[in-house]
Amino acid sequence: VSATVGAVAAVDIGGTTTRAAVAVGDELRGRVAVPTRPGKGLADAVAETVRAALAASGLARGEIDALGVSVPGPLDAKRRSVAFTGNVGLRHYALAERLETALELPVTMDDDANCAALGEVRRGAAMGAGVAVLVVVGTGIGGGIVIDGRLYRGAHAIAGEVGHIVLEPDGPPCSCGHRGCFEALAAGPALAARGRTAARDGRSPALIERAGGSMKAIDTAAVLEAAQAGDHGALEAVAATGRYLGLGVAAVASMLDPDVIVLSGGLGGTPDMLEWARRGVRDHCISPLDSLVRVVNGSLGDDAGLWGAALLALGSKEVA
Amino acid sequence: VSATVGAVAAVDIGGTTTRAAVAVGDELRGRVAVPTRPGKGLADAVAETVRAALAASGLARGEIDALGVSVPGPLDAKRRSVAFTGNVGLRHYALAERLETALELPVTMDDDANCAALGEVRRGAAMGAGVAVLVVVGTGIGGGIVIDGRLYRGAHAIAGEVGHIVLEPDGPPCSCGHRGCFEALAAGPALAARGRTAARDGRSPALIERAGGSMKAIDTAAVLEAAQAGDHGALEAVAATGRYLGLGVAAVASMLDPDVIVLSGGLGGTPDMLEWARRGVRDHCISPLDSLVRVVNGSLGDDAGLWGAALLALGSKEVA
Repeated sequence: VSATVGAVAAVDIGGTTTRAAVAVGDELRGRVAVPTRPGKGLADAVAETVRAALAASGLARGEIDALGVSVPGPLDAKRRSVAFTGNVGLRHYALAERLETALELPVTMDDDANCAALGEVRRGAAMGAGVAVLVVVGTGIGGGIVIDGRLYRGAHAIAGEVGHIVLEPDGPPCSCGHRGCFEALAAGPALAARGRTAARDGRSPALIERAGGSMKAIDTAAVLEAAQAGDHGALEAVAATGRYLGLGVAAVASMLDPDVIVLSGGLGGTPDMLEWARRGVRDHCISPLDSLVRVVNGSLGDDAGLWGAALLALGSKEVA
Repeated sequence: VSATVGAVAAVDIGGTTTRAAVAVGDELRGRVAVPTRPGKGLADAVAETVRAALAASGLARGEIDALGVSVPGPLDAKRRSVAFTGNVGLRHYALAERLETALELPVTMDDDANCAALGEVRRGAAMGAGVAVLVVVGTGIGGGIVIDGRLYRGAHAIAGEVGHIVLEPDGPPCSCGHRGCFEALAAGPALAARGRTAARDGRSPALIERAGGSMKAIDTAAVLEAAQAGDHGALEAVAATGRYLGLGVAAVASMLDPDVIVLSGGLGGTPDMLEWARRGVRDHCISPLDSLVRVVNGSLGDDAGLWGAALLALGSKEVA
């Protein structure tokens, strides 16, 4: 019987992997994961993945009332089209409408950071928080703000662009075209670049060895690994990145005074970076904010986006 | 008859001047302004000022239902005590209770930036905005966030501390004990300090003349004036301060995606700084945020805090 109460499908379209599942009560069922298909066939491929999850969930098609979708990039203001996505390579792509046609389900979409934020607040590490901010640190830095259990989207549905807070006006170039953004200073590529510089300057025996003939071998994981093994240059690279992470997280705390900041993503989810983020709040926020804002890692992993998408779909049913 | 609908008293306690008035409909009546009395006699002095405003307003004591109070500094989490105020010099001072006893009116308090934000959104430059942020730039930098016509206070009633976003971790010391805060880089004292440096370095003929025997003569107003007269060193000081102002305002825009940012205060209210703030949003925010967020000066001047305090008092009546 519970299967008929609020069963919705959820899909999380990532730059490389698309995940889908069916949310029934407190459970995700029938998880499937396939490579994301780039280009104009995206909607058809996603619809197929949703059908696969539905089949794997054991629920009947008629038991599903809505679909929630997490997409890797900004949406149009009405959240019906994907405005652009770096990896998937589409612009002004009417994804919601295409999926509604293909699946005959109402579709609600949001970006990955917003979905993951909603997931972590309602089902994960920030459960019950009045105000929570998710900061996702991976190849970029995204943010999602949840106030009283609902996404805060701002006046033009662009809120939470924490990755593009400028922390150094003359800093390194950012993918957005500006310089010194939080993302350009504290995301994975910035850490990897510092590791390569350390190798080039001869300050990192471990990374020089790792590089062999090609500096490309020095990626985020390699620098984190070398640092854990005590390599001096790698430790410096981690510390420099961590200090910027702390600055950005502290800026979020100073502006929004959240109960909790959830740090996740390939780099943000590491214990090292959690420690640097906490230190940033302690070192840069005024009293008593410096001791009040909790910083934790996400607890849902790859399910955060799916849960967020499912909750969006459930929310759309509530207001429909 | 309108006098009996929602007539409330409002008082704005500033570091140097205390203002009071009575709000009746769309009007402030019986404005009075007196020097702020520092120390423990503050509540009695404020009560006296409120009584003076009431007398000047022509309304009878029985027509006033509540009092709203704007204070120059952080409050306790319940907004009943003044936690500290740099200029007035009190700690843990139970101002709300004292005023309630003295005036036999329910009292609602908030800090000056929150009150001014509420005033500008509901009666001033940001009227009708869904999301508005006030940035007050004077001797310090304060912030107030209004979402859907209501103050956003955060999880611990400390939200909007935009002045303590750290923009330069190794920057100049800030009154909060940290370094490189937005306030330490872009408020009046930072501009004045840059003007003094320009005078010392011989880059500012106008400010050298102004200083005469004492560098103390070079204050914020002197630097702005010298810049308007075309003095090179003063222009550089204004530009350096303006660039930091632009960075901080852009950080606010990136995080909150507001309809409008209202810039006010002794320095923030000048045309020069408005231009730098707009330039900051244009130069540092991602597209399309860079063209969507409006930046305007406040339109209520000294009345912003009074209006905000009055609206707080009216709001407390609504929920009471």
